[in-house]
Amino acid sequence: MAFFKVLKKDKKSSARAGIITTEKGVVKTPVFMPVGTKASVKAVTNEQLYEAGCGIILGNLYHLYLQPGIEVIEKAGGLHKFMNWKRNILTDSGGFQVFSLSRIRKIMENGVEFKSIIDGSNHFFTPVNVVEMQYRIGSNIIMVLDECIPFNDDYEYTMNAAKRTLKWAEASLKEKKRIDRENKSRIFGIVQGGFIKDIRKFCARSISEMDFDGIAIGGLSVGEKRNQTIEILKYTAEFLDNKKPLYFMGMGDPIGIIEAIGSGVDMFDCVMPTRISRNGSAFTSGGRINIKNKKYTYDLCKLDKECNCYTCRNYTRSYLRHLFKSKEILSSILLSIHNLNFIFKLVDNSRQAILSESFESFKSDFINKYGKI
Amino acid sequence: MAFFKVLKKDKKSSARAGIITTEKGVVKTPVFMPVGTKASVKAVTNEQLYEAGCGIILGNLYHLYLQPGIEVIEKAGGLHKFMNWKRNILTDSGGFQVFSLSRIRKIMENGVEFKSIIDGSNHFFTPVNVVEMQYRIGSNIIMVLDECIPFNDDYEYTMNAAKRTLKWAEASLKEKKRIDRENKSRIFGIVQGGFIKDIRKFCARSISEMDFDGIAIGGLSVGEKRNQTIEILKYTAEFLDNKKPLYFMGMGDPIGIIEAIGSGVDMFDCVMPTRISRNGSAFTSGGRINIKNKKYTYDLCKLDKECNCYTCRNYTRSYLRHLFKSKEILSSILLSIHNLNFIFKLVDNSRQAILSESFESFKSDFINKYGKI
Repeated sequence: MAFFKVLKKDKKSSARAGIITTEKGVVKTPVFMPVGTKASVKAVTNEQLYEAGCGIILGNLYHLYLQPGIEVIEKAGGLHKFMNWKRNILTDSGGFQVFSLSRIRKIMENGVEFKSIIDGSNHFFTPVNVVEMQYRIGSNIIMVLDECIPFNDDYEYTMNAAKRTLKWAEASLKEKKRIDRENKSRIFGIVQGGFIKDIRKFCARSISEMDFDGIAIGGLSVGEKRNQTIEILKYTAEFLDNKKPLYFMGMGDPIGIIEAIGSGVDMFDCVMPTRISRNGSAFTSGGRINIKNKKYTYDLCKLDKECNCYTCRNYTRSYLRHLFKSKEILSSILLSIHNLNFIFKLVDNSRQAILSESFESFKSDFINKYGKI
Repeated sequence: MAFFKVLKKDKKSSARAGIITTEKGVVKTPVFMPVGTKASVKAVTNEQLYEAGCGIILGNLYHLYLQPGIEVIEKAGGLHKFMNWKRNILTDSGGFQVFSLSRIRKIMENGVEFKSIIDGSNHFFTPVNVVEMQYRIGSNIIMVLDECIPFNDDYEYTMNAAKRTLKWAEASLKEKKRIDRENKSRIFGIVQGGFIKDIRKFCARSISEMDFDGIAIGGLSVGEKRNQTIEILKYTAEFLDNKKPLYFMGMGDPIGIIEAIGSGVDMFDCVMPTRISRNGSAFTSGGRINIKNKKYTYDLCKLDKECNCYTCRNYTRSYLRHLFKSKEILSSILLSIHNLNFIFKLVDNSRQAILSESFESFKSDFINKYGKI
């Protein structure tokens, strides 16, 4: 069975509907992958994710490596058994976290040294050990180690980081082929290159030429404006091997997702839907709202009149406002369920629209109703 | 249908098995009622409570009155609809909270004035308005307003408070009869009297003589030693009308519950099972453990080998330790589910033992295995 198959291409955009097949089952694309950084998608149970139709979640090697440690997960029989998740797991290499969370780190040609955010101890990530650890914990889709740079316009700095990431990508791929002869796991390369088009093109072509199972677009959503994100994304996508699944790392807002689907992206992840839930925010078909707003005090409607998730079937805005204001944990639970379902429905409906050749009108209807973010 | 019926009395103790019937369904006794202070049992969904067989939860008038306010709940169609809870709700009057949480309060013969812990505004609770508000929000079992005093041995102070509570009990009962002619809700009196036996006896007899549907034992678990609690409880119970259900307010530890069942108590509530969950503690058949203990790092057993709850069916101690140490919300969710199930099973098994005439041996077996608290 092919890992990735495109079932239908949109005629007016680069959007496509496809399927990814792994030993853990079939995932329909476009797909949104909730982030379970530390082996738990925050505030929800696995069953609540299954009920929402979620077929793939993310784990993060950087966090799992520091806590509980790879050995703990390995002794439990891998990450799936450790957290009792029966479906697919993509693990991020932790490149982004090493560069964003570790204040003290040292980039070398063969890897990156960093101090633990938990106890200050020293650690060394290399392209090779990062692949090896993801494989050991049973990740279905392994991400290579990449160097994530902050938003900037320094050509030389960006190019040096990009070249290192490409070198690391080759080393990662080689290690993956060496240890996973049966090809049980899959591995994705990551396109970096900052916001400089030349370098993006260079990275996109280089990664496309390597024998990866999929291609991730990294280094975006790092503080730039949304139109810059989409511009660089569209530009980058032109040079990618689109026979492979394309994954936009760190995109979670509805408008960004639907724009990226139109640019040919198949996979998304982001902490946003669960993070905003803990702050009382909710996606609705009419735009984002904050449930703590006083106007919801007596509002007996559901969060989103077009939603049929567990939260919307069972609870009113009035009750959800009360839970949030009372700092009840149930507030985070119910909003997380809703916001994840909202994004799942967005990608599912996009898929249906692509299959029925109506993606462009679906997209413009959605954006018109949702409004700008 | 009688509100309360004793099905079986234990021959060697005062334990009994019974049923309580309300318009929201049948509740088997002895019963433990999880505390949903602010219209949510902390960290769990209603479905998780239903799955655990929970037939009755607590709400707290004091907290609900301050947030979201009685009017919000009333406009939602009552507390059941507001929080979408389909089974029974007992509401506490908030007497305990007025006396324990409000630093600024003034006790008068006809009620108690207090300042909101939220915004400092002034409020006045009387026996009459407290009953009326509980009735308005649709409580199935209403508790009278009582004066809760701290642990002390001052006879005159204790007696004055007790007399006021008895006077308030009469006023509460009168108001309940006036507004609830169809007897849709039930109302319980509360026995106070501190730790002075004379006054306890006086209160127990006085409350028993009034036309309440049930009798609560209040003013215990306020900082005294466990043997003092049980001694006063046993003493008090002798003077209570045991044709009515007896409710021990604020008892949640396993040994205390099983001792109290042996003294004839039918109903319990306490924040303890959910509160300790948020601190990483778990009841097990071999005693209480704290999941953060290093020895659980690689422990692939379930929390309690004799438990079959959702948490124990699906997760290991190793994973639960990781979640707690990683401050994941799922830690509170999974431990709350387990600890509530543990207490539900304890009261259910006690009931089965009473019905099969083996309560005393069940009790001593449980205590021997569980150990001292």
